[in-house]
Amino acid sequence: MSYLEQKMPEGKVFKDPVHGLVHVGDQIIWDLIATSEFQRLRRIRQLGTTSLTFHGAEHSRFNHSLGVYEIVREILDITFAEDTFTPLERITALCAALLHDLGHGPFSHAFEKVFHTDHEEFTQSILTGNTEVRSVLLRGGREFPFLVASVINKTHPNQTLVKLISSQLDADRMDYLLRDAYYTGVSYGKFDLERILRVLRPSPDGNGVIIKESGMHAVEDYLMSRYQMYQQVYFHPVSRSGEVLLWKILDRAKSLYQAGYEFSVNPSQVLPFFEEDITLDEYLALDDSILMFYFSIWQNEKDKILSDLCNRFLTRRLLSYVDYEPSSDQDFYNQMKGLFEKAEVDPAYYLVIDYSSDLPYDLYKPGASTGKSPIQLLMRNGELHELSTESPIVESIGGKIRTDVKLYFPLDFIENGRIPAEIAKEIVTLIHKKEVQ
Amino acid sequence: MSYLEQKMPEGKVFKDPVHGLVHVGDQIIWDLIATSEFQRLRRIRQLGTTSLTFHGAEHSRFNHSLGVYEIVREILDITFAEDTFTPLERITALCAALLHDLGHGPFSHAFEKVFHTDHEEFTQSILTGNTEVRSVLLRGGREFPFLVASVINKTHPNQTLVKLISSQLDADRMDYLLRDAYYTGVSYGKFDLERILRVLRPSPDGNGVIIKESGMHAVEDYLMSRYQMYQQVYFHPVSRSGEVLLWKILDRAKSLYQAGYEFSVNPSQVLPFFEEDITLDEYLALDDSILMFYFSIWQNEKDKILSDLCNRFLTRRLLSYVDYEPSSDQDFYNQMKGLFEKAEVDPAYYLVIDYSSDLPYDLYKPGASTGKSPIQLLMRNGELHELSTESPIVESIGGKIRTDVKLYFPLDFIENGRIPAEIAKEIVTLIHKKEVQ
Amino acid sequence: MSYLEQKMPEGKVFKDPVHGLVHVGDQIIWDLIATSEFQRLRRIRQLGTTSLTFHGAEHSRFNHSLGVYEIVREILDITFAEDTFTPLERITALCAALLHDLGHGPFSHAFEKVFHTDHEEFTQSILTGNTEVRSVLLRGGREFPFLVASVINKTHPNQTLVKLISSQLDADRMDYLLRDAYYTGVSYGKFDLERILRVLRPSPDGNGVIIKESGMHAVEDYLMSRYQMYQQVYFHPVSRSGEVLLWKILDRAKSLYQAGYEFSVNPSQVLPFFEEDITLDEYLALDDSILMFYFSIWQNEKDKILSDLCNRFLTRRLLSYVDYEPSSDQDFYNQMKGLFEKAEVDPAYYLVIDYSSDLPYDLYKPGASTGKSPIQLLMRNGELHELSTESPIVESIGGKIRTDVKLYFPLDFIENGRIPAEIAKEIVTLIHKKEVQ
Amino acid sequence: MSYLEQKMPEGKVFKDPVHGLVHVGDQIIWDLIATSEFQRLRRIRQLGTTSLTFHGAEHSRFNHSLGVYEIVREILDITFAEDTFTPLERITALCAALLHDLGHGPFSHAFEKVFHTDHEEFTQSILTGNTEVRSVLLRGGREFPFLVASVINKTHPNQTLVKLISSQLDADRMDYLLRDAYYTGVSYGKFDLERILRVLRPSPDGNGVIIKESGMHAVEDYLMSRYQMYQQVYFHPVSRSGEVLLWKILDRAKSLYQAGYEFSVNPSQVLPFFEEDITLDEYLALDDSILMFYFSIWQNEKDKILSDLCNRFLTRRLLSYVDYEPSSDQDFYNQMKGLFEKAEVDPAYYLVIDYSSDLPYDLYKPGASTGKSPIQLLMRNGELHELSTESPIVESIGGKIRTDVKLYFPLDFIENGRIPAEIAKEIVTLIHKKEVQ
Repeated sequence: MSYLEQKMPEGKVFKDPVHGLVHVGDQIIWDLIATSEFQRLRRIRQLGTTSLTFHGAEHSRFNHSLGVYEIVREILDITFAEDTFTPLERITALCAALLHDLGHGPFSHAFEKVFHTDHEEFTQSILTGNTEVRSVLLRGGREFPFLVASVINKTHPNQTLVKLISSQLDADRMDYLLRDAYYTGVSYGKFDLERILRVLRPSPDGNGVIIKESGMHAVEDYLMSRYQMYQQVYFHPVSRSGEVLLWKILDRAKSLYQAGYEFSVNPSQVLPFFEEDITLDEYLALDDSILMFYFSIWQNEKDKILSDLCNRFLTRRLLSYVDYEPSSDQDFYNQMKGLFEKAEVDPAYYLVIDYSSDLPYDLYKPGASTGKSPIQLLMRNGELHELSTESPIVESIGGKIRTDVKLYFPLDFIENGRIPAEIAKEIVTLIHKKEVQ
Repeated sequence: MSYLEQKMPEGKVFKDPVHGLVHVGDQIIWDLIATSEFQRLRRIRQLGTTSLTFHGAEHSRFNHSLGVYEIVREILDITFAEDTFTPLERITALCAALLHDLGHGPFSHAFEKVFHTDHEEFTQSILTGNTEVRSVLLRGGREFPFLVASVINKTHPNQTLVKLISSQLDADRMDYLLRDAYYTGVSYGKFDLERILRVLRPSPDGNGVIIKESGMHAVEDYLMSRYQMYQQVYFHPVSRSGEVLLWKILDRAKSLYQAGYEFSVNPSQVLPFFEEDITLDEYLALDDSILMFYFSIWQNEKDKILSDLCNRFLTRRLLSYVDYEPSSDQDFYNQMKGLFEKAEVDPAYYLVIDYSSDLPYDLYKPGASTGKSPIQLLMRNGELHELSTESPIVESIGGKIRTDVKLYFPLDFIENGRIPAEIAKEIVTLIHKKEVQ
Repeated sequence: MSYLEQKMPEGKVFKDPVHGLVHVGDQIIWDLIATSEFQRLRRIRQLGTTSLTFHGAEHSRFNHSLGVYEIVREILDITFAEDTFTPLERITALCAALLHDLGHGPFSHAFEKVFHTDHEEFTQSILTGNTEVRSVLLRGGREFPFLVASVINKTHPNQTLVKLISSQLDADRMDYLLRDAYYTGVSYGKFDLERILRVLRPSPDGNGVIIKESGMHAVEDYLMSRYQMYQQVYFHPVSRSGEVLLWKILDRAKSLYQAGYEFSVNPSQVLPFFEEDITLDEYLALDDSILMFYFSIWQNEKDKILSDLCNRFLTRRLLSYVDYEPSSDQDFYNQMKGLFEKAEVDPAYYLVIDYSSDLPYDLYKPGASTGKSPIQLLMRNGELHELSTESPIVESIGGKIRTDVKLYFPLDFIENGRIPAEIAKEIVTLIHKKEVQ
Repeated sequence: MSYLEQKMPEGKVFKDPVHGLVHVGDQIIWDLIATSEFQRLRRIRQLGTTSLTFHGAEHSRFNHSLGVYEIVREILDITFAEDTFTPLERITALCAALLHDLGHGPFSHAFEKVFHTDHEEFTQSILTGNTEVRSVLLRGGREFPFLVASVINKTHPNQTLVKLISSQLDADRMDYLLRDAYYTGVSYGKFDLERILRVLRPSPDGNGVIIKESGMHAVEDYLMSRYQMYQQVYFHPVSRSGEVLLWKILDRAKSLYQAGYEFSVNPSQVLPFFEEDITLDEYLALDDSILMFYFSIWQNEKDKILSDLCNRFLTRRLLSYVDYEPSSDQDFYNQMKGLFEKAEVDPAYYLVIDYSSDLPYDLYKPGASTGKSPIQLLMRNGELHELSTESPIVESIGGKIRTDVKLYFPLDFIENGRIPAEIAKEIVTLIHKKEVQ
């Protein structure tokens, strides 16, 4: 019997607070979990800076990755008819589900913005480069690492497999909504996973999954959960304030390095990133704790901006914010900038515009070449109808990008004298004027 | 109005997955939460190595500390009659509840074993030393830091306050049982907190809290939860295997340092600990991420033992174990030790006996000078009866220390050739013989 | 101290699966719960025939009434500032919340359709007629029964009180959505009650309650829950099939009585309803078990239609259904009717069109004289904005009445030969033709 | 393919608040659920008078029976190896699980005490007598009804099947503990069903089920839940007060009948019970609503005792109680009895001693011929150990029958003048004296 068909003598389980149990029966899944690259995900938080707002959300990507695997396993082994996929397709999908987030680094969003890395590319590299994960996958055949990688980069010929893991109704989203809701303690993210799993079917055109009409309301509920989690949790302005600090810390450190600044401790682990010349091993050596170590020692750097930003991040002295309307607030921004410069507070680090935007559900746009595949309902008469044509609720959020822009700045500088009183007064007046518009 | 009486203009809340909301109305509580020493608790995991077994349990002591505060707040502001305590006693208790774990360092258990630190002493130092926390407390009067400290070190004259935070039925335990159950996903730790809070009363003798008779079954259930969490989670042999690795890593690093070994990167943050000469600032500078940083770079140290142990910890290649009976397994241990030495595997690091023990409930022993105060029931006729005299279930677990001893060793060395085949065979035979006894 | 201010020496609680505990501190509430009219609500199911579809939903109006009371109590005693209402207004609201459903009879919907009773009128009669409830209320003063009644019939001068109990965001809906979700086991009905209670405020114009802007998403979620519960549970076509049976049973029995039919057992308890001449005592003597008793014995009546319908109801042999479009299916209906008549199956009882319709959220329509008050958001700048102007989701369901019409008939008659084969064949063809349209 | 092997084309599910979904795939199960005898269980409450104390507990035996079926289905189809049972054994067990409570009548406990019926005998009669259930079962072969009956009456040759449905760790108890906890809202009854199902194994001696050692704590928790539910819910003295009223109502009605009393309405449905000469059809015609109908009209009977007791039951004017110690309170009882007789309050109906007793866990007693089979643990070394020898907690409750006796009487008669003042005073003194003993 080949390695890909090898079952463990007795199934293993992981106790999981979201799914109850995560079941592992295939030897290769067990072996992949044991690799150092997968274990590294224990040291990468799922939600970056969200725990600064929702203190319960301290869970890791390890946690989430097991959950995505479990959902795909339930779909393949319980929901779908046994002959939906070949055994090879099945195990390929399970591996892809488990490994889809492998390339994430610490605080991905801010990190990638500053260092121009791409976690999706690194996922591909880890699957096919010189890693323990690849060694395990290779036991399944020379092409198997590439097969798994092709599901994740969406080029696998069976698009139903691809869309189980990445689409508008995929195991990834289903797990993170439920998991992030559980750990934050907000109730909005909950939806009826059991019901969705029951009404999911492979699309007859081999191009994704569809939903039986009877499950429409469960999917509406799932999309509402998604919408609410984005509005309430993922885009929470306080978490974004932490994100802005992170971004500016990394930005400052990189600028200092490029300007020849001498760090009191040589930041070996981040140097390759400053130089934007990174090997796979250097990338894998990085995790949340490495960055947190540097933030911790940088609190004592002689560069005032770097040390202040790091101290803010570690002690949660966050930046404050006001709503910012790009089309009309340019003057306001320029006036603020002038005042900050006058007070010798560098606006590049202390007056930051942050955008967040989300498309809760992408409608089908006939003729459009891009965009995500819509969710299809299988009607009782056998026809497929796009979800938003049946659901006014989904229609109401469909196709509309929701954007929120905020301007972040240190209110404490205004209050504690770091900005001289007369300038502070002008700033306060300016903000007040804007707010009562 | 004095600072200690100062209310916030509008109450603040933290969304908490265990208690729903944590309510903050007192200015001093808000200010204490904002201190760098309290924020540091975000970087100290509540359950150390438990997440190696229960992957969901990645929560921090920050998380738990807010929970303990919330339980005490509910007892003082909702359960107890308003005149039970003076306003000063009330705010003292709230501060003590919030700050009781302030002195915890990373992976306290193993850390303290190797470096002879004491988190309780550090809690006292943080409250009364040169810290932001003390600055905030001082706004409440010169004696206020000492007053809060006295609740935590149990010398406060009002022993009811003391026992709300530290006793066999205290807010600390109530929170951690519920919280650890929530994050691990095990159901055993759940009990009816709401009911217990309803039946709790200050003891008429001013020496703790008592329970109305009608709440006896709720307290039985709480003690069962505690018993089960210890058996199922806290003493789980796999988590203890992670703990053993930690202990041996720190042990090895300290020994190397004392032997004059030169580390490839100067471990500045841990040097004071190697020398057992630690300032408060040095202690506070340490957190989980600092240790994890060193473990990460020590994976590449030239010392094989240190690098292997660190790699094991980070990639979860844990030690295996067998039951060990101290009174009768001495011979077995010596034979194992001989074989390990013969294979040049240092038994000081690779053949480790680990004890765990717990006393689920300490009965009242007349005449005994030590021991914890028992839980008293307030009977309908006004008498106080010790819980175990009324409950056969509690009697069954009361006063009995439950000890579990295991011998840990690297089974993979036996399997992968690190230990030569002939010695490995002898070891296997020895273990097998012991197990079928 | 007056009766209306009288507190119970020690508060009482009811264990409630939805709210945890229902707290009773006021003597009058305790006394009202003990009246025979309130206890009667234990014998009236909250959801009539829903348990034929969702077997878990067997809870009573007693259950729900306590829940509505508890929500109002939390709003008045915890959420709102103490001076929002006078003590008299407070106790009036609590009584009204508890008693608002007092006039419901068994299976209200079908019952009222046939016998032209009105449960709201009976609620008023019970409050002000010769009942135990009125006796209790009178202890609060001669006008107090009328005061409580005026909250329920919406004429009380303080419209905020009125709208706590009856509006688009009232304690009644909040409780039944959560409760019905709990008992059916569907997750759709859950929303974050705790959050809504935190952001609720009395309207500055004294005309209802408003929501702080920060709570908008919680209210969106509540309206979605409402929408989903209507779609998934309350309008479930199988429950409605039970409802149709009930309606037709009562209809048939009444017709038989009016035609002088002699029942084998004199249906004393329902005679006044057949005659549509009902005293308050006769109304109060009726409950689910009385009707069920008659259905049970009517199974053996010699009238074939009555006995068949009752047997169907008790053994859950429900009618089947097809979608029915009033504007275009008239012909279809007439053809079906012709065939049923030919088969001697009375279409008045066996071919039934049933409408259900709901308005998930009623928008503000300027100039409109009717309609429900919209939900207002209190914006950060102090303005009030109607909810749907801020929420695209709410806008999508607002103002649109959702109607579902079905035609019910006994498919088993077609299958088991009760309808002759050749006619049955025609009926099947007719239905098939309609479905594939 | 035989009827017993017939699967439904598409599986059906019932939404269940306790198990999420109840899955039905076998045609015979679907057909059995549709029988009138099984549907009758919708009209029999699971917990009789418990909802007088815990208002949420209004669920029916229909509800519970589906739950027991679902647990057995999960054990047979998921937990156990496929070859554990033959297909015939499997379907026999599923039918038995579904039907095990079929013979329950309304308020079984009180009913059987007065009329000497036995619900277990009636279950057997329904399975093998002239019923729809038997008709369905007969499609599985002439012997099939008897086969199913033999599982329920414990004579089936495969004792493992028998013990799945009736033993100290059976699906019946597992469901009712979880279900009753859910509906009452008490948290005590919860335990980790998923875990127990995972560690359950057929006993190697073919005589029941055993538990893998690793599941010991889950079973401890289950037994604690059972213990707590009995102490807190099932034996709650207020529910028992309702039970006493029921018993005395039926007792009084029967005595009146036997004494030739003429009821204002002929109680046709209960006459056979008064005469203790009951056909199966008469038994099946009875349900909660029939009895409630009679209680309702008996409120107006001229017999004062019957009308008072019925009114008490329907309006929840319950009897009060004091603890009663059979061995020492005989004198107290006689004095009370004397005073009641003097006041012309018939002690046969108004001064009632009620016993409740439970054996939380029956230990193995070597040599004992009776008693329930103990729960066996499968140790890692393959041995079977009786649970209480491994668990001190179980040992503490094992083998000990817990009895609680109370004396019930109408305190309101003492307070409202129905008992003359001077006698009332003596009664109060007597009770007070007893209580302060």
